[in-house]
Amino acid sequence: MKTLWQHCHVATMAHGKYSIIEDAALVTAGSLIEWIGPRSQVPTADYAQVYDLQGAWVTPGLIDCHTHTVFGGNRSGEFEQRLEGVSYAEIAAKGGGIASTVRATRAASEDELFASAHKRLRSLLRDGVTTVEIKSGYGLDLASERKLLRVIRRLGDALPVSVRATCLAAHALPPEYKDRADDYIDHICTEMLPALAAEGLVDAVDAFCEYLAFSPEQVERVFKVAQQLGLPVKLHAEQLSSLHGSSLAARYHALSADHLEFMTEEDAIAMAASGTVAVLLPGAFYFLRETQLPPMDALRKHGVKIAIASDLNPGTSPALSVRLMLNMACTLFRMTPEEALAGATQHAATALGMGDTHGSLEVGKVADFVAWQIDRPADLAYWLGGELDKRVVRHGVDVTV
Amino acid sequence: MKTLWQHCHVATMAHGKYSIIEDAALVTAGSLIEWIGPRSQVPTADYAQVYDLQGAWVTPGLIDCHTHTVFGGNRSGEFEQRLEGVSYAEIAAKGGGIASTVRATRAASEDELFASAHKRLRSLLRDGVTTVEIKSGYGLDLASERKLLRVIRRLGDALPVSVRATCLAAHALPPEYKDRADDYIDHICTEMLPALAAEGLVDAVDAFCEYLAFSPEQVERVFKVAQQLGLPVKLHAEQLSSLHGSSLAARYHALSADHLEFMTEEDAIAMAASGTVAVLLPGAFYFLRETQLPPMDALRKHGVKIAIASDLNPGTSPALSVRLMLNMACTLFRMTPEEALAGATQHAATALGMGDTHGSLEVGKVADFVAWQIDRPADLAYWLGGELDKRVVRHGVDVTV
Ligand SMILES: [Zn+2]
Ligand SMILES: [Zn+2]
Repeated sequence: MKTLWQHCHVATMAHGKYSIIEDAALVTAGSLIEWIGPRSQVPTADYAQVYDLQGAWVTPGLIDCHTHTVFGGNRSGEFEQRLEGVSYAEIAAKGGGIASTVRATRAASEDELFASAHKRLRSLLRDGVTTVEIKSGYGLDLASERKLLRVIRRLGDALPVSVRATCLAAHALPPEYKDRADDYIDHICTEMLPALAAEGLVDAVDAFCEYLAFSPEQVERVFKVAQQLGLPVKLHAEQLSSLHGSSLAARYHALSADHLEFMTEEDAIAMAASGTVAVLLPGAFYFLRETQLPPMDALRKHGVKIAIASDLNPGTSPALSVRLMLNMACTLFRMTPEEALAGATQHAATALGMGDTHGSLEVGKVADFVAWQIDRPADLAYWLGGELDKRVVRHGVDVTV
Repeated sequence: MKTLWQHCHVATMAHGKYSIIEDAALVTAGSLIEWIGPRSQVPTADYAQVYDLQGAWVTPGLIDCHTHTVFGGNRSGEFEQRLEGVSYAEIAAKGGGIASTVRATRAASEDELFASAHKRLRSLLRDGVTTVEIKSGYGLDLASERKLLRVIRRLGDALPVSVRATCLAAHALPPEYKDRADDYIDHICTEMLPALAAEGLVDAVDAFCEYLAFSPEQVERVFKVAQQLGLPVKLHAEQLSSLHGSSLAARYHALSADHLEFMTEEDAIAMAASGTVAVLLPGAFYFLRETQLPPMDALRKHGVKIAIASDLNPGTSPALSVRLMLNMACTLFRMTPEEALAGATQHAATALGMGDTHGSLEVGKVADFVAWQIDRPADLAYWLGGELDKRVVRHGVDVTV
């Protein structure tokens, strides 16, 4: 069953560049791209279906490679209190902050978590996302982390999107382990990770390396167990201070190190050598009104691949759009629209270990793409919010919502 | 024909405050609100239709009181060049900047301008907008400004939104008047405004008061003619420098002065005295990476009403969402979510001279409202981008797109 898609221009994003084909056509066979090139050279065949894309610009489906989409409650009340002048200390004293999300997540049923995350994920999908990574990390005990990871798996079954599940048990210290961070790390390493991995719920392991969270030594223990379990690792690193978590991640051949505002050039050299992707999260930078920019020049100079993601989470980046993140990557981090788009396609795929099958439009890759009614690819980073007319194709099937 | 809307909470936004009614109901009769209050007190009547809003939060329809929605071309190419390192001077030398938009707008047919603006306006509407102001100002000659204003009128006929048309002929100096700004102002005052007003195409008159554009003296000449024609005025003022355009606007009882980053406390006192609304445009502030914040404390201290708008335009704010502007008003300008929502409802209505009939949900006002599937009104300013599930009602009719 072959399908022909034509009357379009394509930014294939091969090798992380636009790699434009004007007046192009694609042939899909089942869920794969069988042919792509200038329309004048389309192979003659008995196509089961022919789509006229009406001059659209086709890009790979967007890939959001860092989200915390599943959580209980929401923190708009805290957001409002902060703006009304209530201090962080007062909010924390009343049990606010991440502790409130952990409480609400533990209290919520699997179905409740599924329903609220489903709405958020649908919003991402309406913006052209065809692959998303979702982390656990608001459960912080075995049963609650399992509940989150099961919801993440269900979301992938329920919606037309490829979902990667990351276990982020080492996100924060749960209240029952107060002042016993090493004991919690023990629990993660000996109980949680082995059990959740055995249940097939985990595609990668992540941790939060920060003075507010876990030390490089604690992170390393988690990474060692992940390695034994055959799971790739990722790391939240260098968001608020420089602990060289990104170099640690590189030593463990991490898929990615994420945030990175405070990383050094040495960290960049280490990441480049290991092929670890730098995942930048401009939504959190914006929402927290940070001023320390990630070291773009060092990342470019050493050839580190740069991805862009929403970091969708209730505390620091309630972002429901990857396209908005492209704009923020350009406006705030001074990335080019081409770099930003590569960051939400090819390099985001690499950050999920899917770079060989997803992220660009090339023969043999999965046929996940979006046909946008825009004037040029830069439009995807230019327009601020709202919705662009588009058709979304996943696994060769039109799934426009 | 009465309709009952129930099972909802309402933030009526009366007097620019949430003014919440929990477990509320609304009764609409034709296009007006006939009754609003606690559901337990709904008047008994023979309702033609009863809507179950399923626990939604109802707010007034959003009002975007400052946009330049109609223009030819788009400037994503320039956006990209700038990020690739091309200087403003080089882009201007190649005919870029506002000059390129004027060229593309003059060259476009009325139907082409309508089609591209229709797409952008639909994006605003999908975010809950029921009233929008649209300015001319990229034509800069009589025929081209007429073309823009006719498109603006057609948009109001074609989509379920109340459209106010503002003539902004004094937006920039057209090339044929190079070094003859006073002559162009003459042309506006003696030819353009009288003709366009006589054709019923103008609801208000605006100008751009800035060292890059027109001086306070030139603006005043435009305002005088507007006054003679019986048209209310507005002004782009204090965006990049302090020329006290906002005080000038206040002297002419302007509906609003807009941008205002560089206004002084004296300007705020003058605006408060004249009831001139301060329209803040956080999208342009963000997109241009400005650092001078509008003087929030002075505006609050003197009781100036503050509105928030998208400033949708191709050069400095390609913003397709008012809800995103609410977030930027909070995140960047430190407004509260309640202030921000008042800024896109009641105070935005006042900035359009529609404060008595629109902008809040009160008996006798127009039944324009949105029923949002959210946890609390602050969610409207909290979520960043994307789309929230909602039902949109205009003139008492469900127009959800
Ligand atoms: Zn994160
Ligand atoms: Zn403007």
